[in-house]
Amino acid sequence: MLEAKWHAALAQWQIVLGSHSVIADPAQLAAVETATFFTHQKVTAILRPASREQVQTCLRIATRFQVPVYPRSSGKNWGYGSGVPTQTNCAILDLSRMNRILECNEKLAYVTVEPGVTQRQLYDFLTTQKSNLWMDATGSSPDTSLIGNTMERGFGHTPHGDHFAQSCGLEVVLPTGDVIETGYRRFPQSVTGPLYRWGVGPFLDGLFSQSNFGVVTSMTIWLMPAPAHFEAFLFRCDHQAQLGPLIEVLSRLRLAGTIQSAVHIGNDYKVLSSLQQYPWDLTQGKTPLLPAQMDAIRARLQFGAWNGSGGLYGTKAQVAAARREIRRALAGKVTRLRFLDDRMLALSLKFAKPIKLLSGWDLSKTVALLQPLYGLLKGIPTDRVLPSVFWRKTGPVPADIDPDQARCGLLWYAPIVPATSSDIDRIRHLTVDTLLAAGFEPMISLTMITGRAIACVISISYDRDIDGEDERALACYRTLAESVTALGYNSYRLGIQSMEEMGSSEGYLDLLAKIKSAVDPAGILAPGRYEFRKGSHASAS
Amino acid sequence: MLEAKWHAALAQWQIVLGSHSVIADPAQLAAVETATFFTHQKVTAILRPASREQVQTCLRIATRFQVPVYPRSSGKNWGYGSGVPTQTNCAILDLSRMNRILECNEKLAYVTVEPGVTQRQLYDFLTTQKSNLWMDATGSSPDTSLIGNTMERGFGHTPHGDHFAQSCGLEVVLPTGDVIETGYRRFPQSVTGPLYRWGVGPFLDGLFSQSNFGVVTSMTIWLMPAPAHFEAFLFRCDHQAQLGPLIEVLSRLRLAGTIQSAVHIGNDYKVLSSLQQYPWDLTQGKTPLLPAQMDAIRARLQFGAWNGSGGLYGTKAQVAAARREIRRALAGKVTRLRFLDDRMLALSLKFAKPIKLLSGWDLSKTVALLQPLYGLLKGIPTDRVLPSVFWRKTGPVPADIDPDQARCGLLWYAPIVPATSSDIDRIRHLTVDTLLAAGFEPMISLTMITGRAIACVISISYDRDIDGEDERALACYRTLAESVTALGYNSYRLGIQSMEEMGSSEGYLDLLAKIKSAVDPAGILAPGRYEFRKGSHASAS
Repeated sequence: MLEAKWHAALAQWQIVLGSHSVIADPAQLAAVETATFFTHQKVTAILRPASREQVQTCLRIATRFQVPVYPRSSGKNWGYGSGVPTQTNCAILDLSRMNRILECNEKLAYVTVEPGVTQRQLYDFLTTQKSNLWMDATGSSPDTSLIGNTMERGFGHTPHGDHFAQSCGLEVVLPTGDVIETGYRRFPQSVTGPLYRWGVGPFLDGLFSQSNFGVVTSMTIWLMPAPAHFEAFLFRCDHQAQLGPLIEVLSRLRLAGTIQSAVHIGNDYKVLSSLQQYPWDLTQGKTPLLPAQMDAIRARLQFGAWNGSGGLYGTKAQVAAARREIRRALAGKVTRLRFLDDRMLALSLKFAKPIKLLSGWDLSKTVALLQPLYGLLKGIPTDRVLPSVFWRKTGPVPADIDPDQARCGLLWYAPIVPATSSDIDRIRHLTVDTLLAAGFEPMISLTMITGRAIACVISISYDRDIDGEDERALACYRTLAESVTALGYNSYRLGIQSMEEMGSSEGYLDLLAKIKSAVDPAGILAPGRYEFRKGSHASAS
Repeated sequence: MLEAKWHAALAQWQIVLGSHSVIADPAQLAAVETATFFTHQKVTAILRPASREQVQTCLRIATRFQVPVYPRSSGKNWGYGSGVPTQTNCAILDLSRMNRILECNEKLAYVTVEPGVTQRQLYDFLTTQKSNLWMDATGSSPDTSLIGNTMERGFGHTPHGDHFAQSCGLEVVLPTGDVIETGYRRFPQSVTGPLYRWGVGPFLDGLFSQSNFGVVTSMTIWLMPAPAHFEAFLFRCDHQAQLGPLIEVLSRLRLAGTIQSAVHIGNDYKVLSSLQQYPWDLTQGKTPLLPAQMDAIRARLQFGAWNGSGGLYGTKAQVAAARREIRRALAGKVTRLRFLDDRMLALSLKFAKPIKLLSGWDLSKTVALLQPLYGLLKGIPTDRVLPSVFWRKTGPVPADIDPDQARCGLLWYAPIVPATSSDIDRIRHLTVDTLLAAGFEPMISLTMITGRAIACVISISYDRDIDGEDERALACYRTLAESVTALGYNSYRLGIQSMEEMGSSEGYLDLLAKIKSAVDPAGILAPGRYEFRKGSHASAS
């Protein structure tokens, strides 16, 4: 039974948005209450504003009736809670109808977008415009929101991989319904709003990333001009112990500017999950897939214990100089290293079939894996990584992928680790031991975000249809998070089930609480999101 | 006559700091009340805390007795108000005694410092340590504070030129005396505090840059490993009209990553001011120096209407590739372009004297100008730029430079302008016309901070000992600022006399006011600094 204040708010929202944009249909609500792990939160309604003005009115109504509202852009925050609110009994503020690309400046290399604009939409837009600009993309679905990912401080693969660092000039609706603009954008006559991040006076953009202080309704994203030449470098290590020394070399290359983009390195489990589902036959239905079994598989499928990729961007001569430098630095550190450009990739694609006919060696699988990875280094979104969430499902992967509704189990845990051999070894051992002991495969991807720091994305992948797996996966997450945090590594981003990782740092959390009261006196915006103090908010478990 | 609350606060401060660290001597107060332009602000006392704890206590006392306090690190914010408070009747919180380098990590390339640490101190430290790390330096005095400059979002010349972007993990004392730490530093057990900027949850560092929300008591600065090879490129344009097209080429090179550092370009007036004082003889004592006279001087002294420099960092091959690309791109765009490395510079120094003897051509002056510029591209602080503040003084430049006490007149106005030909032409014409009409030389330096945005630093340089010049200079500043703002360009940084440029943007300023009330209920920290609303604060004029 809804309380009276909800009835009043819903009636007001319907007047503002029209009744078709205030959804209370139980089936649709159930869908948005579902993530890739256990959630208990109920959703009261879905609001679908079409404009910033409607967002303002929605929040004013929420403030007036003191009912909580939880914004989502595309709701595809898989592994971190999808679009499910942190707290129960919120109305979802679905921003996906606000999907305009407001401006594109080819010369100064930026676009200004609304929260509903997806990776695919921007990529298609640039292609249609015959733009010379490259975007950055994450490996997640092409249908994820650019603003959503940026405000979660997500990352991709190109030199613009740190999304938040390449954003500029926010328009934000505060919980009270007031609008603020950041940077120079706040000056009505300004022409530099999209060009210079800091503006004048306090730089406030950071307040609206990983927070519940406001709803970002538009933002500028800096793009990169297509380089004259592009080459990918791909490497693998056949031995686990190669990883540590390799990380140190890559750190040096990144600090020196030879490598200007993120370097991604996935372990064998991670790679296998993007090639196929769990090998039920081989393991006679048992889980987890043991290291010895994994070793055999990768020897057969020809990938490494660790498999990495990065991009080189510049003129032909610049790329060649970087290539030589990388070849020299990685010599003896990796089992195999190769470089790939558009021409070589096209040749591989062309000759995959003939080679199979002649030699029996099936290149097509390698190329199928390679092509999306290669594309990501050029900022081309892909849906080829996505099927990996079906890893533990016994049925086939459907054509239309919806991990939430398909009951795929996925928890992502993503601590930042120093780019040193000893730190990387520490997290590697801990992860492998913890996940295998809990019955899950230790899938690890490492992203060297800067020369100093590596984002470890650890997937706990499971089948939600198996009794008790939700609980086991969450318990495994908590065990891992606790021991990793004790080592001194913290998450770069939190799932809705793990807000207690915000910790108990007095000063910082007190300041957040003060800012929250100042901008959201009624406490109606995304309560519990990136705010936690012991005893104040119950977490999901 | 001090009010009773001041007597009470001073007594308390003396107990905490010792009486030698609470200065009320009129001569010393008069010194810190002096900037490089007219100021009316009186200073009540100077507090000299030696530790974070003492800063906390000082602020608690200030809050308790409701007396305003104004922090300064080195007080050398010349051209923007030196160390003079924005508002009258503040106690200065002088942080220069907190000058420890708390940590230096050679492998992961950073230092953690206190606010009293100067450019010179860090440079000497790195040299003594035989460190392989390079810092970034501004062209201002070697004795300026690193934290002070970073929090003002100042910039230098290397790939780490955007200082705020290369900072991480702040420790901040809030006006109430509470301490907060930002990023992962807030977690007591964290090892990644100095390595990853964003931490988890809202990113708050921006709140403490260009604000009056807290006193930064320590901060990590990311450094760059010395590159295998370094080369400077130096260019000049003999015609004013070359600037616009040149800017567009440089923007493309910067966006493409060929140029990875700031490019600095100074006009003829700017260059002349760093070579000599005003040519009183030539002009028969008249001011300003007219464009025709300037043309003659630069033809004689062999510099351009615009003179630029930038650095190339990498392996020899990488630098060579970048050099070829720059040579190709700048061909026909500049009058002269040359590249310089350590070996060539050493040769020039060695042969300057013999060449003069043989040819009569005095290279030493060119090299004298070149050397500090070249050094700045390698992050070496210099005191050679400083004498330019004596431009309009009639006496000689003293050995020990103190622009405030020497009554050098200097106002800096620094708007950000889009990196396009038309924008740069617009600001160039407006600046030249406005300054010459007001009787000042239009000294302009352009720093291409990113491929999209150029920081124009315009100096109004004068002699404070001449009657009426203070007023004329300030009037010129205001005329210029008004017309530039009307064109859509805004300052990147404000002097204490120009806080009204914070503008009247409703949402943003309201939010600032709310945060200010939340962190500083007594309003005791740097009142008026980067806060302005019409009618609320009287500005200096």
